[in-house]
Amino acid sequence: MTRPAGGARSRTGRRSGDSGSKAAILQAARVQFAEYGYQGATIRAIAAAADVDPALVHHFYGTKERLFAAAMELPVTPSEAITAALARREPGSSPGTHMVRSALALWESAGVLGSLQAMLRSALTSEQAAATLRDFMAEAILRPLASVAEGTNPDRTSYRASLIATQMLGLAVGRYVLRFGPVAEASPDELAAAIGPVIDRYLTGDIS
Amino acid sequence: MTRPAGGARSRTGRRSGDSGSKAAILQAARVQFAEYGYQGATIRAIAAAADVDPALVHHFYGTKERLFAAAMELPVTPSEAITAALARREPGSSPGTHMVRSALALWESAGVLGSLQAMLRSALTSEQAAATLRDFMAEAILRPLASVAEGTNPDRTSYRASLIATQMLGLAVGRYVLRFGPVAEASPDELAAAIGPVIDRYLTGDIS
Repeated sequence: MTRPAGGARSRTGRRSGDSGSKAAILQAARVQFAEYGYQGATIRAIAAAADVDPALVHHFYGTKERLFAAAMELPVTPSEAITAALARREPGSSPGTHMVRSALALWESAGVLGSLQAMLRSALTSEQAAATLRDFMAEAILRPLASVAEGTNPDRTSYRASLIATQMLGLAVGRYVLRFGPVAEASPDELAAAIGPVIDRYLTGDIS
Repeated sequence: MTRPAGGARSRTGRRSGDSGSKAAILQAARVQFAEYGYQGATIRAIAAAADVDPALVHHFYGTKERLFAAAMELPVTPSEAITAALARREPGSSPGTHMVRSALALWESAGVLGSLQAMLRSALTSEQAAATLRDFMAEAILRPLASVAEGTNPDRTSYRASLIATQMLGLAVGRYVLRFGPVAEASPDELAAAIGPVIDRYLTGDIS
């Protein structure tokens, strides 16, 4: 794959100046994701709409997930955040406890909540936006969760991953959007102690 | 408390015809709840805005919670549904398993999902709507849940109730709005088996 140098004119004559190209790519990505969903949008079509070489999109963003995260102004790429959080786990804490603590730290870092809230609001308003978010979560969140579940209990991993997603989603909406008193006020450590074992159950427990 | 007969003119000369009064009360209630929130709105002020006697509002709706549920077109009054569901519990099933099964049955009955989705959408859009929903849930959902927790484990009942609310909320959004594949496709019995013990943990387990 050729990687045009930033700012250089590619031999196709297409736009390749870094900041202008990035803005055009992100704008095209938002339109294509909204129109065709997460599965339907392709890097090739986004590049064409932005009038740049597909290689430049790969050069800037690497994967469709990272491009989506950038277009939605997510400050992190979810699958990478999940993988990194689980890799940093201290020997003493259970996977679930660690996952709750890491998620709270991520959500409470700048910029994440606004993006989550905007995505959830769109999903509640438009079936197309819900489908896009669903497909994105399946690939970026449920798949890495399932691979963790797989390492511990290979039975029904995608069901286990989506059960985890229900608890984490409810925690985020309850703590930050609806702000249920005691859950909004609890410390991350208290929540990790209360909810961590639930995540462990969904990861490896007997759920039938 | 006087209860004017439906259709009769009250001695104050205010409107009291049943269907016209009900429509006026519900419309006034929506305006007052939106403007002053669930706590701030009063039956007295709603009656005044609807130009009816407060006793008529009590006659038709009994409590502020039932008036709110009617104004929001909820097909049930949440605290009554929770209390009734827990009273119907068969001896063999745990409280949590029973709660999950009852909630799914309620959500899958006609009309509930649309209301929930509309309320959640408003809460994501407006801080005032979020505050109204938060206060309403505190009174109509968290309080009856806390009284169940209290019967079994009197320690930190409102924290326990709000942990339960996070899991149930995430289940509803994950199954019906975002429709995470395996959670959307699972049967109520499967979900009750997987999630019921989580609710039991929040009700009575060691959460610290």
